[in-house]
Amino acid sequence: MNILVLVGGGTASGKTYVIEEVCKIIGAENVTHLSIDDYYKEQSNISFEVRKKQNYDHPKAFDWKLIYSQLQDLKNNKPILKPTYDYTIHNRSDKVEEIVPKKLIIVEGIMALVNKNVRELADLTIFINASRERRLLRRMERDQNERKRTYDSIVNQYFATVQPMYEEIIGPSSYYADMLINNDGYDNRSIEVIAAVLKALRNNEIKGR
Amino acid sequence: MNILVLVGGGTASGKTYVIEEVCKIIGAENVTHLSIDDYYKEQSNISFEVRKKQNYDHPKAFDWKLIYSQLQDLKNNKPILKPTYDYTIHNRSDKVEEIVPKKLIIVEGIMALVNKNVRELADLTIFINASRERRLLRRMERDQNERKRTYDSIVNQYFATVQPMYEEIIGPSSYYADMLINNDGYDNRSIEVIAAVLKALRNNEIKGR
Repeated sequence: MNILVLVGGGTASGKTYVIEEVCKIIGAENVTHLSIDDYYKEQSNISFEVRKKQNYDHPKAFDWKLIYSQLQDLKNNKPILKPTYDYTIHNRSDKVEEIVPKKLIIVEGIMALVNKNVRELADLTIFINASRERRLLRRMERDQNERKRTYDSIVNQYFATVQPMYEEIIGPSSYYADMLINNDGYDNRSIEVIAAVLKALRNNEIKGR
Repeated sequence: MNILVLVGGGTASGKTYVIEEVCKIIGAENVTHLSIDDYYKEQSNISFEVRKKQNYDHPKAFDWKLIYSQLQDLKNNKPILKPTYDYTIHNRSDKVEEIVPKKLIIVEGIMALVNKNVRELADLTIFINASRERRLLRRMERDQNERKRTYDSIVNQYFATVQPMYEEIIGPSSYYADMLINNDGYDNRSIEVIAAVLKALRNNEIKGR
């Protein structure tokens, strides 16, 4: 059985950054790093205008059946055909990507700790904390640069869905974390701490589920 | 240099329990386990009636100079004469206790992460999360049984100082934690996770300050 680690946290809390830094310590060659964001639902049956207005910060926006079955396959060392998502069209893209699992599978996403079945597949759950202000600013920068959104559309989406869903669903999912880490500019040992825990998990010093 | 770990968290969040369980894994014989509570200020110059009404949930109630100098001594492998506190009289007791430091020094307390100088002595900082309700019930049970307080005095103190000081000072000090752990009844891996991190610290896989 491979080892499955889920990494949750609010939008732009630095999940990807933290995992990449951890991989520099434990060796990226042994890690399969995936994002729950690739599992937004296929919604070609809905027009672009309607898709633009969907609530992408609600668990219902994700294809949990597919997430569960593909993570189960990866744990059982079976390759998967992972969907990919295109933010510019708010829809799943035509491409799939073959993922051949490695010993340690790290899956990140705002919703990573939200689904009970998926959580119960995990050997370890981590939640990344960062302040609301820092997350908003990071999200602004990312969405303007990488996702070609306007200032207004980012701010509107933030207060319409991102912030309320954090309050209602994402923040409370931290309850299910085996450990929480601060990533908010204060110089701490988050990266080294997570690396040490993942090494212990790999060496069976921490037992999986 | 010995290794200093600070463990903060609200009243009755389970700091002592968590540390004792961690010690069962890493070996209690190598750990010096202290409580910041022993460092409440000496206040024989104040009457019992006035002492009863002090705010014991404020950093000013603690003797930070003594905490700093004694923790520095312990890090430098020097024995200390630790004060002890008597909750029944709300005052430092006459006894001191000689503490000969071991390799790993774990210091717990609601205020463990509050003082900047003390924090900067630490090689690792941990914050224990538990819900307010669970903490209130645990505190109630403990203060009735071990500290001989009445129901009314516990509830009055809780809303007069314990809760507001948690909001203002203790909760926000979690910002300075290298890792946070949930101890709220949900079956997670807090104990094993902390044990793995302390082992890594002892083996110099995580660098101290």
